[in-house]
Amino acid sequence: MKIFKFNHKILLLCALVLITVMSCNNKNQEKMNKENTTGLFPKGDQLPNEWFTGNAFLSPLVAKDKNNEFSAGAVTFEIGARTNWHIHPKGQVLIVTEGSGFYQEKGKPAQIIKKGDVVNIPENVEHWHGASDKTSMTHIAITNFKEDVQVTWLKPVTDEEFNQVNNEQ
Amino acid sequence: MKIFKFNHKILLLCALVLITVMSCNNKNQEKMNKENTTGLFPKGDQLPNEWFTGNAFLSPLVAKDKNNEFSAGAVTFEIGARTNWHIHPKGQVLIVTEGSGFYQEKGKPAQIIKKGDVVNIPENVEHWHGASDKTSMTHIAITNFKEDVQVTWLKPVTDEEFNQVNNEQ
Repeated sequence: MKIFKFNHKILLLCALVLITVMSCNNKNQEKMNKENTTGLFPKGDQLPNEWFTGNAFLSPLVAKDKNNEFSAGAVTFEIGARTNWHIHPKGQVLIVTEGSGFYQEKGKPAQIIKKGDVVNIPENVEHWHGASDKTSMTHIAITNFKEDVQVTWLKPVTDEEFNQVNNEQ
Repeated sequence: MKIFKFNHKILLLCALVLITVMSCNNKNQEKMNKENTTGLFPKGDQLPNEWFTGNAFLSPLVAKDKNNEFSAGAVTFEIGARTNWHIHPKGQVLIVTEGSGFYQEKGKPAQIIKKGDVVNIPENVEHWHGASDKTSMTHIAITNFKEDVQVTWLKPVTDEEFNQVNNEQ
């Protein structure tokens, strides 16, 4: 009976350790989920599949006006999502605020871009950007206007092109 | 002797619980410190006290060039830090990326601005922005050029002005 009581208490304490560890992990997970779901900006509205592959979203930040010769917005690419190939007639600046993904100019190797990175995209250069096949990415895009034009959309980045870039990493 | 052995094991298990809890808290603290110290961008270089009160830092993101009629940088205001009163001849866009603080136009009540908020500052309006007396703030600033001028610096925001804004909240 003494031995039973002894084991019983040990068992209770072991359970306490287990509950503490589980509660600790849960708190970390809740914190991470909260950070991931709230983010810096609202996720915004889904972008059209005419110009984007997969699930991409735009949260507008500021519109062109008499001072700003650009518009700015936060674009979120879920895993696997990317822009079509496209051209900006007066360039675009990307500032990555969450996660990581790719920026690739036609005929050049893709660059991995991640939280905190800035890309100053030149005018009239065919390129795409987006998530990777394992990570999502959010970036602010500051897109200049040339007269009333910001972008010329071209063909989608095919699965073959996207997979090749991902497999090279 | 049996009782001693029993208490000894209980003591060891209690110590184990304590170590687990402490380790868990340490991990959370390390995570928070890492987030606070790494942030989205490097903290950058301290900004001159000629134009800023307290400790403010600039991490440049992109310079004016043939496409971008603006420069952009991340500005971090430690608690109590703020710009002088100043004017932008072609406006400025602020995007708050960390913490919270104030934006105030001369003669108007101060606005609390926080992570995720955007301020589209008009041209030729005297204003200041910065941390509060209890919180730090980081914002991206996209500052347009009018010819070669981005800003005209005016007088510091006095402690009286700053305290009044903080006390009104």
